[in-house]
Amino acid sequence: MIPALQARGFEVHALGRRPPAATVVFHPVDLLDAEAVQASVGRVGAVHLLHLAWYAEPGLYWRSPVNLDWVAASLALVRAFREGGGARAVVAGTCAEYAWGPERLSEDAHCVPATLYGAAKDATQRVLTAYARETGLSFAWGRLFFLYGPREKSGRLVSDAIRALSSGERFGTSPGHQRRDFSHVADVAGAFAALVDSAVEGAVNIGSGAAVPVRVILEQIGQLTGRPDLIDFGARRLAESEPASIEADVSRLREAVGFHPRYDLGSGLTDTFGAYSERQA
Amino acid sequence: MIPALQARGFEVHALGRRPPAATVVFHPVDLLDAEAVQASVGRVGAVHLLHLAWYAEPGLYWRSPVNLDWVAASLALVRAFREGGGARAVVAGTCAEYAWGPERLSEDAHCVPATLYGAAKDATQRVLTAYARETGLSFAWGRLFFLYGPREKSGRLVSDAIRALSSGERFGTSPGHQRRDFSHVADVAGAFAALVDSAVEGAVNIGSGAAVPVRVILEQIGQLTGRPDLIDFGARRLAESEPASIEADVSRLREAVGFHPRYDLGSGLTDTFGAYSERQA
Repeated sequence: MIPALQARGFEVHALGRRPPAATVVFHPVDLLDAEAVQASVGRVGAVHLLHLAWYAEPGLYWRSPVNLDWVAASLALVRAFREGGGARAVVAGTCAEYAWGPERLSEDAHCVPATLYGAAKDATQRVLTAYARETGLSFAWGRLFFLYGPREKSGRLVSDAIRALSSGERFGTSPGHQRRDFSHVADVAGAFAALVDSAVEGAVNIGSGAAVPVRVILEQIGQLTGRPDLIDFGARRLAESEPASIEADVSRLREAVGFHPRYDLGSGLTDTFGAYSERQA
Repeated sequence: MIPALQARGFEVHALGRRPPAATVVFHPVDLLDAEAVQASVGRVGAVHLLHLAWYAEPGLYWRSPVNLDWVAASLALVRAFREGGGARAVVAGTCAEYAWGPERLSEDAHCVPATLYGAAKDATQRVLTAYARETGLSFAWGRLFFLYGPREKSGRLVSDAIRALSSGERFGTSPGHQRRDFSHVADVAGAFAALVDSAVEGAVNIGSGAAVPVRVILEQIGQLTGRPDLIDFGARRLAESEPASIEADVSRLREAVGFHPRYDLGSGLTDTFGAYSERQA
């Protein structure tokens, strides 16, 4: 994320518990501690805010009560930023805010989240939109779809598949017919940086605009690793709650924000596998 | 509120900064202090929770950033209650969550709040509904319409009009054609107590079901005080944002909850004026 912001000339200050890998001014703070956040945000005095932090433990974050803490933390952070003189805030939302259906999801689609995570993000967006309108804050909300890329945590599709297949382990998965909208993490970072650097307000989908069957993604990883034989399609059933397709309408991202991705699925997976292989070597 | 709960056999514990007038077990706590709330809620170990507290300073609460604090405080309170073993929570919402239109407002009407206050309440309801579903909490949300009654704070229609007319002061107001759904505070308390004591889940309108023109309310206060001549209808314009009618559909409150009010507008205003006169005597 940070190089994408620096490439646009932003002087980046990072707030969080652990310093990021990139060279920035780092301000150690627990984002769940509203008073510490207020002090820290006040010291930085930033003009732009990009807020990506949330509870994201794979498998747990959909249903965790910790989502409630992150609603509160997000409201407190944006308020502290605005009251400290901040002008523009961009906050990360999720495709899980939408009522998932067969259609391509555009930003004005009805939001009926199926999960506590989706409801918490959706509610945060609603309050911040009203708060921004009331206080004159320029505010955008990036609804993130699925992502993959180098240094992804385990518990996620692409990283788990690359690791298993590269290690000669079997990889059991669903039949893989469900279509999902995946972006390379560098493109997600680029999209958020472009959104911060724009004057676009409201919700903006951050996705590729082209959902592909999960089976296709895994078959490509099979080819890259040379071990397509290790994938067990249909070893487990797809959860009932998983819809057939989740695809972003990215016309706002392309036309209003003016962002175009660098990777397609093939080059993105190649890059991700290359980075994995390098770290193993 | 407390007598209405006690009348149903509840042992009432009150949490807040100041002790209520009624005889209850009082636990002093700042509801904006999440840690203190958790400790206090844990000590009480209640089975039912009724949460009415919010920032409500007349004239200011519609647009105040303090609404963000009450989103956080409400989430923390309900979570602490549930994690402490609580079974059923009822929280106060508002008719300002709805997109105000000419129709009578039923609970499944579209919520598009026009104000930060409405957005904050609506968002709180959305998160708590998802949280309750996830954790098995029995949860209802009482959408409060307009109220009046003895010991009402100044800055509100009925109390201000009674005070002005009783003191021989002129009372300047809008032409008063807008219809509003007003309930006597004792009926609001009775409705909330009935809701707590029921198993009804989801949103329930707390109103009279019969909106009346504000002019009619003021004319009745003119009669009660004997000084209808002091009312200046049309002295100020109605704000553009004020809709022609705000009226609750109360069929859920009547049929599912089984609550019926004690006061109509005439007897409610007579009671309120009587209580005012007694305190002045």
